[in-house]
Amino acid sequence: MSTVSPPENLEKDPRVKAVFDDIRATRKVDTLNNLWLYLAATPDLLEEVWQGVKVVMATESALDAKTKEMIYIAVSIANSCSYCIHSHTAAARAKGMSAEEHADLLRVVSLAGRTNHLLNGLQVPVDAAFDQDAS
Amino acid sequence: MSTVSPPENLEKDPRVKAVFDDIRATRKVDTLNNLWLYLAATPDLLEEVWQGVKVVMATESALDAKTKEMIYIAVSIANSCSYCIHSHTAAARAKGMSAEEHADLLRVVSLAGRTNHLLNGLQVPVDAAFDQDAS
Amino acid sequence: MSTVSPPENLEKDPRVKAVFDDIRATRKVDTLNNLWLYLAATPDLLEEVWQGVKVVMATESALDAKTKEMIYIAVSIANSCSYCIHSHTAAARAKGMSAEEHADLLRVVSLAGRTNHLLNGLQVPVDAAFDQDAS
Amino acid sequence: MSTVSPPENLEKDPRVKAVFDDIRATRKVDTLNNLWLYLAATPDLLEEVWQGVKVVMATESALDAKTKEMIYIAVSIANSCSYCIHSHTAAARAKGMSAEEHADLLRVVSLAGRTNHLLNGLQVPVDAAFDQDAS
Amino acid sequence: MSTVSPPENLEKDPRVKAVFDDIRATRKVDTLNNLWLYLAATPDLLEEVWQGVKVVMATESALDAKTKEMIYIAVSIANSCSYCIHSHTAAARAKGMSAEEHADLLRVVSLAGRTNHLLNGLQVPVDAAFDQDAS
Amino acid sequence: MSTVSPPENLEKDPRVKAVFDDIRATRKVDTLNNLWLYLAATPDLLEEVWQGVKVVMATESALDAKTKEMIYIAVSIANSCSYCIHSHTAAARAKGMSAEEHADLLRVVSLAGRTNHLLNGLQVPVDAAFDQDAS
Repeated sequence: MSTVSPPENLEKDPRVKAVFDDIRATRKVDTLNNLWLYLAATPDLLEEVWQGVKVVMATESALDAKTKEMIYIAVSIANSCSYCIHSHTAAARAKGMSAEEHADLLRVVSLAGRTNHLLNGLQVPVDAAFDQDAS
Repeated sequence: MSTVSPPENLEKDPRVKAVFDDIRATRKVDTLNNLWLYLAATPDLLEEVWQGVKVVMATESALDAKTKEMIYIAVSIANSCSYCIHSHTAAARAKGMSAEEHADLLRVVSLAGRTNHLLNGLQVPVDAAFDQDAS
Repeated sequence: MSTVSPPENLEKDPRVKAVFDDIRATRKVDTLNNLWLYLAATPDLLEEVWQGVKVVMATESALDAKTKEMIYIAVSIANSCSYCIHSHTAAARAKGMSAEEHADLLRVVSLAGRTNHLLNGLQVPVDAAFDQDAS
Repeated sequence: MSTVSPPENLEKDPRVKAVFDDIRATRKVDTLNNLWLYLAATPDLLEEVWQGVKVVMATESALDAKTKEMIYIAVSIANSCSYCIHSHTAAARAKGMSAEEHADLLRVVSLAGRTNHLLNGLQVPVDAAFDQDAS
Repeated sequence: MSTVSPPENLEKDPRVKAVFDDIRATRKVDTLNNLWLYLAATPDLLEEVWQGVKVVMATESALDAKTKEMIYIAVSIANSCSYCIHSHTAAARAKGMSAEEHADLLRVVSLAGRTNHLLNGLQVPVDAAFDQDAS
Repeated sequence: MSTVSPPENLEKDPRVKAVFDDIRATRKVDTLNNLWLYLAATPDLLEEVWQGVKVVMATESALDAKTKEMIYIAVSIANSCSYCIHSHTAAARAKGMSAEEHADLLRVVSLAGRTNHLLNGLQVPVDAAFDQDAS
């Protein structure tokens, strides 16, 4: 049950087809995740979102692909986005995340959740030493 | 301005001194961050929190220390914990995070923030393929 | 599956019936959303919540009804309240939100999600020019 | 630095003065917290907010006043509302919260933060036994 | 549908069995909640989480057991953790929370949600009087 | 105090200067907000963020510019991003938001905060009627 419905004959729209082809080629997959199907109702948004994901997640950058997926999971957990947690856990596994690394990720994420709440409760002043000019 | 005040003569309490000594030895530092000073008012909590942080962050595990700090930053950003963002950005740098890696981290975190909101708005059903039994 | 169950014969309680009648009359509907049925177990809370919703959402005010529903959706997305996202997306459509406006809403909400995370990560100081005395 | 500025001669407006008098009488205080001063610019909102706070927090109900303030702190921490954390920590102390109770509150809140993140990461299915019909 | 799957023959691992036995003995129950079953795949994490929950929730401390569960619910609501809301509502009831107390809890939590958003929107400066040195 | 520091001679880098010139031209301003100055340390990120903001916020679309800024404020409040709340409140005013509209926005945002928490606490099942196929 979602707030929009994907259009029929999704790929009849050439803009949708172009994005879908690019996703399949970039990710070397045949099947697209539901997100893309539901976004096809609004080609502008589909193009923008895929472009944003592609440039950050499917392009070589300072961090490796597996680490980027694990960071994505961490944010998605803190934001309670169920779809995102599922899709990026699957993606991280596809990029090599082991069961041990997944468990370690969850340990760090939940520890951060704990101290985030503790520090928000204490309202401790930020140390002068953390200032970027002193780093 | 915080909701508690650190006690005077922090290390007069032997339990506090024991934790502080362990932090200094484990982290090879002379100065303790404000968090620990403010927690000293409640030695039970101080011991529990340090024990939790030590076992997850200062112990060898599946993920390397720098990656763990970057995941910590990601969660702290999503939870809007200013102190935690500052302290773990400093810690990640101390463990080798480069300016390029920091910028890449922020790109992934903010992209995740974007798609987390998009997916929550769309309420797209989770793909059957994400089920852990199919992974 | 919820944490409370709606009572049987909901409208036997005259306080519940009075609120339900007012909702039907104010919204010009025959059927009540689940929220109201589940709140009927606690008439005090039912009265308070309906009064709060009625005075803000069903009363003429500076913003038009459709805009208010879109703002409601935006907050509900950021708070990851699935029920609220569904109910207020339906309400915004009933008040005239087009598919194009919905897509535009999601673009703005997800962009805000992105820069909220970026700014929280950077901890950029607030510009003096944003101070209300200078506005 | 706030997004609105309190008007001058706050109590010249009789609606503002009436609310302020009621706050002083209800809380038995001479000085009003900043929140009320800043809300005085919009008397409608001032009246609504004070009415909402008064009926829930300053009226006898199932939970005692101290417990209600501690629950308020817990929510404010999770929502990262700095002003609210400060004001309700002060209010809870005024209603008898001891240093030990405050520390215990922070232990529970931070443990909840930890397991909230863990469960969101695991996406464990809700037990059938938690269904309200079985409670 | 979760992101991990519980192992078969859960209690074959002596570390898992030891934790499960301790949960059953501490809580005086025969059946374990799903959380523990899913955590059994990673005995380290299982031990850490149970230890953390036991020391805070199942040990005598400044706050009584029912109040601690209600605070846990409050945080879980604000963090939108569906599993946690369900499990701790059930736990609070098991420890004596009445329907009236549950309704009162929800009134306080939702009022806090309201003023947290209002204060974040206003960015009102924190009163000097809230400083812990003045408390 | 931020986690990065803006480089000196910001506009010496031609990529930075190009973005800054485009911001000044698009927004018809002489002075840039701090966000852009701090992003200048990482030209890639600066370009991406400005491009994203420009295409959504500074381009004609289904929603008018003032409404888009108010939606931005709503999300920023729920995410507790202080900088974003300040900057978009200023931007909404620059695009015509009146004091009455601002107060009405805060009423809707805080009401949504209230019912978001209430519904998360109740875990009410989503009405079948909200399904997009029935809209």
